[in-house]
Formats: sequence, structure tokens, C-alpha cells
Amino acid sequence: MKHTHHCAQLTSADINSTVTLVGWVDTIRDQGGIIFIDLRDRKGLTQIKLEPHDNEQLGEQLKHLKDESVIAVAGLVSPRPEGTQNANLPTGQIEVVATELQIHNLADTPPFPLDDAGGDKVNEDLRLTYRYLDLRRPRMRRNLQMRHTVSKTIRDYFDEQDFIEVETPFLFKSTPEGAREYLVPSRIHPGEFYALSQSPQQYKQILMVAGVERYFQIARCFRDEDLRSDRQMEFTQVDVEASFVDREDIYALFEGMVKQVWKQAAGVDIETPILRMSYQEAMNRFGVDKPDMRFGLELVDFSETFRASSFKVFSGTVKNGGSIKAINAKGLADITQGELKSLEDAAKSLGAKGLAFIKVEAGEWKSPIVKFFSDEEKAALTAQLGLEDGDIIFFAAAEWERACSILGRVRLDSAALLQKRGKIELRADDWKFLWVIEFPLMSYDEEAGRFVATHHPFTSPVPEDIPLLDTDPKAVRGQHYDLVLNGMELGGGSIRIHQPALQKKVFEDVLKIPADVVESRFGYMLKAFKYGAPPHGGIAFGLDRMVALLCGTTSIRDVIAFPKTQRGQDLMAQSPTPVTARQLKELHIQTVVPETD
Amino acid sequence: MKHTHHCAQLTSADINSTVTLVGWVDTIRDQGGIIFIDLRDRKGLTQIKLEPHDNEQLGEQLKHLKDESVIAVAGLVSPRPEGTQNANLPTGQIEVVATELQIHNLADTPPFPLDDAGGDKVNEDLRLTYRYLDLRRPRMRRNLQMRHTVSKTIRDYFDEQDFIEVETPFLFKSTPEGAREYLVPSRIHPGEFYALSQSPQQYKQILMVAGVERYFQIARCFRDEDLRSDRQMEFTQVDVEASFVDREDIYALFEGMVKQVWKQAAGVDIETPILRMSYQEAMNRFGVDKPDMRFGLELVDFSETFRASSFKVFSGTVKNGGSIKAINAKGLADITQGELKSLEDAAKSLGAKGLAFIKVEAGEWKSPIVKFFSDEEKAALTAQLGLEDGDIIFFAAAEWERACSILGRVRLDSAALLQKRGKIELRADDWKFLWVIEFPLMSYDEEAGRFVATHHPFTSPVPEDIPLLDTDPKAVRGQHYDLVLNGMELGGGSIRIHQPALQKKVFEDVLKIPADVVESRFGYMLKAFKYGAPPHGGIAFGLDRMVALLCGTTSIRDVIAFPKTQRGQDLMAQSPTPVTARQLKELHIQTVVPETD
Repeated sequence: MKHTHHCAQLTSADINSTVTLVGWVDTIRDQGGIIFIDLRDRKGLTQIKLEPHDNEQLGEQLKHLKDESVIAVAGLVSPRPEGTQNANLPTGQIEVVATELQIHNLADTPPFPLDDAGGDKVNEDLRLTYRYLDLRRPRMRRNLQMRHTVSKTIRDYFDEQDFIEVETPFLFKSTPEGAREYLVPSRIHPGEFYALSQSPQQYKQILMVAGVERYFQIARCFRDEDLRSDRQMEFTQVDVEASFVDREDIYALFEGMVKQVWKQAAGVDIETPILRMSYQEAMNRFGVDKPDMRFGLELVDFSETFRASSFKVFSGTVKNGGSIKAINAKGLADITQGELKSLEDAAKSLGAKGLAFIKVEAGEWKSPIVKFFSDEEKAALTAQLGLEDGDIIFFAAAEWERACSILGRVRLDSAALLQKRGKIELRADDWKFLWVIEFPLMSYDEEAGRFVATHHPFTSPVPEDIPLLDTDPKAVRGQHYDLVLNGMELGGGSIRIHQPALQKKVFEDVLKIPADVVESRFGYMLKAFKYGAPPHGGIAFGLDRMVALLCGTTSIRDVIAFPKTQRGQDLMAQSPTPVTARQLKELHIQTVVPETD
Repeated sequence: MKHTHHCAQLTSADINSTVTLVGWVDTIRDQGGIIFIDLRDRKGLTQIKLEPHDNEQLGEQLKHLKDESVIAVAGLVSPRPEGTQNANLPTGQIEVVATELQIHNLADTPPFPLDDAGGDKVNEDLRLTYRYLDLRRPRMRRNLQMRHTVSKTIRDYFDEQDFIEVETPFLFKSTPEGAREYLVPSRIHPGEFYALSQSPQQYKQILMVAGVERYFQIARCFRDEDLRSDRQMEFTQVDVEASFVDREDIYALFEGMVKQVWKQAAGVDIETPILRMSYQEAMNRFGVDKPDMRFGLELVDFSETFRASSFKVFSGTVKNGGSIKAINAKGLADITQGELKSLEDAAKSLGAKGLAFIKVEAGEWKSPIVKFFSDEEKAALTAQLGLEDGDIIFFAAAEWERACSILGRVRLDSAALLQKRGKIELRADDWKFLWVIEFPLMSYDEEAGRFVATHHPFTSPVPEDIPLLDTDPKAVRGQHYDLVLNGMELGGGSIRIHQPALQKKVFEDVLKIPADVVESRFGYMLKAFKYGAPPHGGIAFGLDRMVALLCGTTSIRDVIAFPKTQRGQDLMAQSPTPVTARQLKELHIQTVVPETD
């Protein structure tokens, strides 16, 4: 019995046709001896009517039929009786009166309900154990379809832009200075290992040296990091590199991609060019390098206001080169003690000593610290923060970057509290894109006592800042860019260093990586650059996160067919597992399992 | 200096335009103080003319400029002087008279010539060490472009056919009974390992249970096998699975894909439907399950002819249930002793005791065994093999499958010898596709003393053969199919078992896999099949090999950007490598390196 139609196809136009449908029993009900089945395939539902009293064989087959069994039915398309039509279904005007039933597979009772609402209430581990059932839920089906659409759109776009997709190896060399990597022992080379590629960064730069000029790849990447809700052991990256481009070219290229993806996947027109903001400004105004632009509550700098304040905590900070920043969490004066405590804890986790605040209620400023403030200081706060009854101000007094970060966190948490109260609305589909640019090329690692690359050591400095590499490395801006959407980093990249001498200088003189380490890890790149490396730059995007945002979910596990748990387990197929002694012997390793108490 | 055009773009229509080009110095030559550069980018070449005697700065810059340096030039498009045009180049009518030169990067002298012919003469290890130079060669550039075109065409095709691409995990569980696998130690679970996925086989079947219905993926696969010229540690597979399909559906689907790929990539119309042949017939006529159909030299069965022969070697073989097969290597009577020895060695490597032959020269049969043949036997040979002067017959006398295999090998080797002599022509672009079908589901493993799956244990038997599972397992045909092109297996697949009881029976009763092993390796699949598994089937294609055939190369390393050597090494980036003690400790393993003498 081969199907003639799918389950969202038949309408009144097909009445009196003889058809065959296949699919899963979505629901089955007995109405006075007549059996109604909603038959489901990936396209939709069709109502099937069976009358077993006329047909002994049918009656026998139906006895054991339960939800989620796989069947084929053949019969006549008929109008539903008046009053039983369903306007919400494409097939809601008809039913198939089946005379033949073939059971492909009977199903046991699923361990959880397969509708969206029912499945959402279930423990995620159970969903992952029975992933084949979880993926039958309408939302998960839509998510997989969305992922396909997004990937396809991205590939079509880069193909149109004359890029070619090149596959790079996953079995790469170990470069232990970055994120933790997965190792793969070699059988042929005893005692040696490959590492699973953390990203195609080095290969894609080599492809530019090879003259490919316009490369892209949708590539799997592997990082052995501690897993959070938005991390997976393996994730997928849209990886791009082009030669003879500058930052403007990359911005235009990616804005084109974003436009096309959002149009195809969400039916939305994204306005371009996308707003740009320097790292400096993003920190100053939003306290974070990936600001959520869907709401205000901006940070305001009051360092000058409090420079000579009699409130010594503030004036002392300014005197020591620090900053006084404040935000007005507008309308949040009704914050509870518990909420305030949470905000304070969050601030402390970022290095604040406490969280100074001023509530304004019934015209009165309520705060333990307000007694130290002069009228001029109060007037400045009122004017610059637009202070009104019902507001609450939070302060941070610290070294500039830390003060910004503290209030950046308070800003986000305040917005969440305001949203809970219905005072602001943060819609998942209010798409606020932003380029954050001009990051510092390096930051000083106090612990290591040396500079480290903010992003990676291949990022090219802004040309006019190159002389500062010797004199003031911290002031050097990199040609790096991040694309931010609603407070999340969608992707980032940079124009790279293509001059072998400059790359060597950054490695050895600025980042102080010992020459032998540079040689063993990056020697081949420096060598490649000596054979005609073009100027080049690129970007990498997290596909999982992009798809998750488009699906309106915060968990990338909802857009990955078979994710691992946060303990790195595949609960369905059951991995990882112990392996045989023979396997270990062939790979020249043995396990060293810590003793358990 | 940003480029206004690429290097294959300017024609006579652009004369007198001011342009900027970027690229690599393909050649540079000094003609009486005037410098001519062929500037190259991925699109082509443009001739640049520089007159340094008018321009001191230019002269200084040109002093150090060598081949493969990266430059930008700005100047005026001018007609080439009469007699110096090049009709073979799109830009052959013009040259750019440059007034400005920017050097992006000077290049050292490449270690080998970067033209196709020059590079081909070089040791492959050198090419792989400097892969970024090797990939600049025109042929390698075309190969990468071809690979992109083929992948894109495949994805477009399956998208049009309403398939969705789903990414499946690379970190899978160890299933040590198949090909050797790569292991990845877990940091979080001491003593446990993931295995790199050998193919998405199990996940794609699970996706069918999940109701995806039409899945495809271009997926990387990993096998730790001994590497031959057409094997790589990681390779790329076009992986497909669909529900509610039979073999005819799969044939039609893949013929559509092949048609579209060959049209797009090679401009060739492939005729469909593609010829089909049973395994039995392929072995009988060509002695191999992947016959090269570009030439004849078919095997002929003479078992009946020699059943009562006085040549005991033949009649004895037939009496013991074996077969006598022969082929006529038409026109190869001039085979040398050395060539004959090679053929014999090949036959022996497949289990032959020797290689009986008859040469026909000047009307005379020359052979050590012809004296044993009767006139009737000779007449049968002459008639059925179309024997003529200048021919040579080869015989195999052995158990049927072995006799076929021996002559299958002799057939291929003879064809190579005939091609060397110009007596037959085997063109790489003579596309002879073939479906080989109806393989035996299982074969008997003498060593293990049990049946093993010919392809994999998920292949469904041909329905009418299911009763034979209990009585005569060897006679059961599987619903397996291979697509063969010019003697190479392009891909293969099958309709799968979707009934949990039948799958369990095949695992335990037929293949005799112990129940606890079945449970630990495949238990989750058997469980999944109990929740409504649809009938399904699929196929997997080697992308690397398909692209290699389309590029006219026999080595898949020529169509992989960064292949490993046959010793599993990345000669460019230098892997594998030893790793640090800290890394090993974190992964709860230590190395056990064998002592060297």
C-alpha cells in the first residue's frame, strides 16, 4: 500500500477520490462503534473513519491499535458531516472513510505526551532518552525544519556571493593554550594524538594563502568546556574568510546574509546598515560588550559630579582613577528585599563591595547614602537620569571597566524584574542587531603577568595603532567585530594579520609566547605567510544559537537533533562507555581512573 | 587600493578605463627595461605593463618583486600592441599600463613549480607540506570549485525533493564489531570513551522513527583503517534516508540526483533509468560486484562443457560442485612473460592454484593444457568465446564465487594491458552507471564459524525470502543496492528492517550475536522500533570519490583540501603530535609506547 497523498493535502476538491495515506496514529477514539483516527505525518493530520462492524478483519486489526502506531489506510475521501468540520485544519472539511488498513508497526504507550504543552512539562532527561519521540512533537519538528531552512539560505547566499564551501579536517593538531580540546590517540603513531578542531581558523587562513579568496563552511567544532545551557561538546559554526577585504566589506556581506536568513526563516525585513558601536561606548552606555538594545536603562557616568563629593566612597574612587556610574531602573522602586539582595549578590560576584541605591517614593529619596549627597549632586542625578517618583537608582564605584560591568549586570537583571511586573516588554522577535567594534587588541592578564589576545592572536591591529604595539599595547584597537542580537553574541571575526613579520612580533614581542612554542604551534602558518599571503579577514557565527533565536527558544539543545546532556552524555544511544582492552592496546593508551572513596 | 575588477574581466570594451587589480604575480619578465607581469587571481590572468624608468618609486619596488608575491596595481586599460594579443585568454586583447603599485606581501621562491605539469612531477609529500602552494595550481583550484558545485547541486536537489538536512553527532558510542574506530576519552567520565561516528547509520534510522520521513546530510565519517590511495581517516558521505519507500523509490531518487550532478558539474546528460543487474549476474559475467561496463571481455561458464572432460583438473572441480569459467582477452596473445606472471600472481592472490591459458597464434592453440581437450571442448570454447587468431583465453576452476573473482581480476588486468597496447580505450568520461542488486543478505564467515551480514545487520531481506532465514540463511537475498560507476562503488544502501522482532531475530538467531551484546550496542534501537517505526530505507554515497571521478583523478587526495598522508599525517600543520602530561591527566589516560629496538 503506497501512499497517494500526504496528511495535509486532501480538501473538499478531492471528495470521492480513492486515496491511500500512511502515518502515525495521532489519536484514536471510538464513537459508538465507529472508530476515528487522526492520522499524522510530518505535513499534518487527516481524519480517518473506520466502521469495523461491517468488516471483521478491520475489527480484529483495530483491537490492538494504539497511539503512535504506524499504519496505512485506503478509502474514499468524504465530506465531514455538517457541524463536525474543523476550520483550523487544511484537511478539516473532509475525512477518509477507510476500507483497508495495514499496520506497519504497533506502538507501545509513549512515556510522555507528544504534544507541545505536555512534552514541555517533562524532565529533559526523559525527552533526551526517548529523543525519537520528543522529535515527533510539533515544535521540535518545526525547529528541525527551521534549521534546515537557515542552513540552506546561508549556503545559497554565499554561493550567490561567489564563495565556495571547502571542507577542512576535524582531526587537527593539539594547540593546548586555548579552550580545552578533545584528543584522539593515533594507532599508527604510538604516543601521539590528534585534537578535534576547535574551529577552522587556521585552515581557513591557509586557504586564503592558497588563493581561494572567498571561502565559507558550515562546520562542526569541538570544545571540551564545562557545559552550560547554551554550550555543547560539538556545535556548528558558519565560518567565512575572504581576501582583499576590509571591515566595511565584511559588514556589508554579513548584513546581506542576516537580511536573507531573517526574510526566509522568519519573514522579517531586517533594516540595514546595522548600527555600529565601539566597545568603549557599549561598555559606557550598557556595561557589556553585547548590549541588549531592546530597552534603555542606560548607564550614566557621574565621575565628574562626585570628584569632590563629601561622600568619600565616591570621591575616593574617582581620585584613584576609578569611575562612578549609575542607572535608573525606572519604575522599580517597588523592588522586594529578596530581589534587592539578588541584585547585590550579582554585583558582588563581579567585584562590587555592595550595591548602593536610591529609591524615590512619594517625593522622598530613600537610601542609606543620600545623606552624604549635596543638593548639586542630587540635582545632577535627577536631571541626567530623568529621576521620577517610583524609580530606583543603582550605583557602581570602581575601576572603569568593572564599574561598567557591574551596572551592566544590574541593568539586565532590573529589566527582567521590570518585565515580570509588566512595566517593559522584551519580545523575542524584536530583532535589535548591533555591530560592536574597536575592541582592545589585548588585555593584561594579571595572573600570567603578560598581555593576552582579547580574541585571538591573528587579529590585525587598527593600522594607525600599530606604533602603539611597542609603547602602549593596551591602547591598541583591533580590527575585530562582533555581531550582537538582543544581548547575545551571534558571531565575531576580524581582519587578520597577513604580514609574517608583524604576526611574529605579536606572538613573541607583545604576547611573549616563547619562540620555540610559536614555532611548534604556528610555525607552519608563519612559513605559509612568506609565500604570498593576501590581506584577508573573516567571521564565524554560531549556527545553533542563531537558529535557537529564530525558533524563539533559549536552549540550543532544542535545535540540535541529538544533543548531549550537560554531563556530556547521549542518554539515548548511551555514550560515553568503557571500551575493550584490545581497543586501548591498539591505541597505545591505558586508562587511569581515579580511586573513588 | 581596492580592486575594481577581477583578473579575467577586462576586455577591449574597457580600454581607457582606470582600474585597480589585486592578485598574485604569476610571472614577471623584463623586456628591455619594461616590466610585464601576469597578475593572477582565482578567476584568471591579466597582463600588467610597468615602465619603471619613468617612475623611481616603481623601480625601487620592482627590485624585490618575485613570482607569487601579492600586489595591487592601478592604471589604464590599453590595447596590446598588434601581434602580442593572446586569443586563449579572455583578457588577451588588453593590458593594464600601471602607474601605481602596492606590495601586500613579498614571496619567497616556491619550492616547486605551480603549473599543473610542473607540480605533477613533484613528490606528493612536498605538495602536501606546502599545500597552500599546491592548491594554487590551476587543476587543484578547479577541483575545489568542482567539489563546491557538486555539494551545492546535491543539497539543492534534496531540498527540491522535500528532504531536510539534519546534523547528527560525531561523538558517538563505541561499537567495536565493525571497522576500527577512533576513540575520544571523556574528561567528565573517567575511563570512558566516545567513538567518532563511522557513519550516521543509526542516527538516521532513529530520525525515521522520529517522523522526519525525508532526511539527508553531507556528513564527515571517520574510520581508523589502513589507508590506501582511495582512503582517508576522515571522508565525506552523502547520507540519505526516507520513510514509506521501496527500492524503486530509492532508484528513482538517486538517478535524479546523479542526472542533476552530472549535468551541473560535467555538462553531461546521464541516461536513466540506469541498468540493473543482480549480484549473481554481475559475478557470473564480470567476476565482481562492481563491474566496469566500459568494455566486454565477459566471463563465460564452461562447467557443463568440462563436466566429463578427460582434463581431470576441470572435471574434478565440477564434480566437487565447483565452476569452470573462462574469458577471452581479445587480441592479447602478444602478452609478455612478465605480464603473464603478474596476471598469474594476481590470480593466486585470490586463491587460484595457477592461471591456465590458451593462446591462439597463426591458427595454432598454444597451451600446456590444450592436449587434454577434446574437439568438442575446443569447439565449445571457440564458439562461445568468439575465439580468433591473436586471442588468449584464461581459465579459472574453483568454487563458483572464487572462480568468478579470479577471472574478474584477470579481466580488469587484461583490459589494462589492452589499453596500454591501444587495442581498447577506457575513457574516464565514458560514464557507465549500473545498479547491482539482490546481494545475499549474509555470508558465512569460515573463521568465525557463523553468518555475518554482507552489508550491515539492518538490511531487510527480500520479503519472499524471509522464511529462508531459518532454513537456508545463505540463500536469503537482501534489499540492498549498490550504485556502480566504471568499476567503482559510488554508493550503496538498503531498505531496512523496521520490525523490532525481525531485527532481534537477525541479530540473535541468524547472526548469533549474544543477547547481552545486542542489548548494549543496539538495545536503544530495538527499543525505539517499539514506539512506531515506519518502513524506511536509504543510501550513502562517497562524496570524495564522486568528485574525484568528475575531476578525472583517481586519488581522492586531489579533491580534499587538506588530506592526511597514508601514514595519517598532516604534513603541513604537523599532526599527530605528543601532548602534555597535564592534558593526559585531565583525560584519565596515559600512553603505553612500545619499546623500539
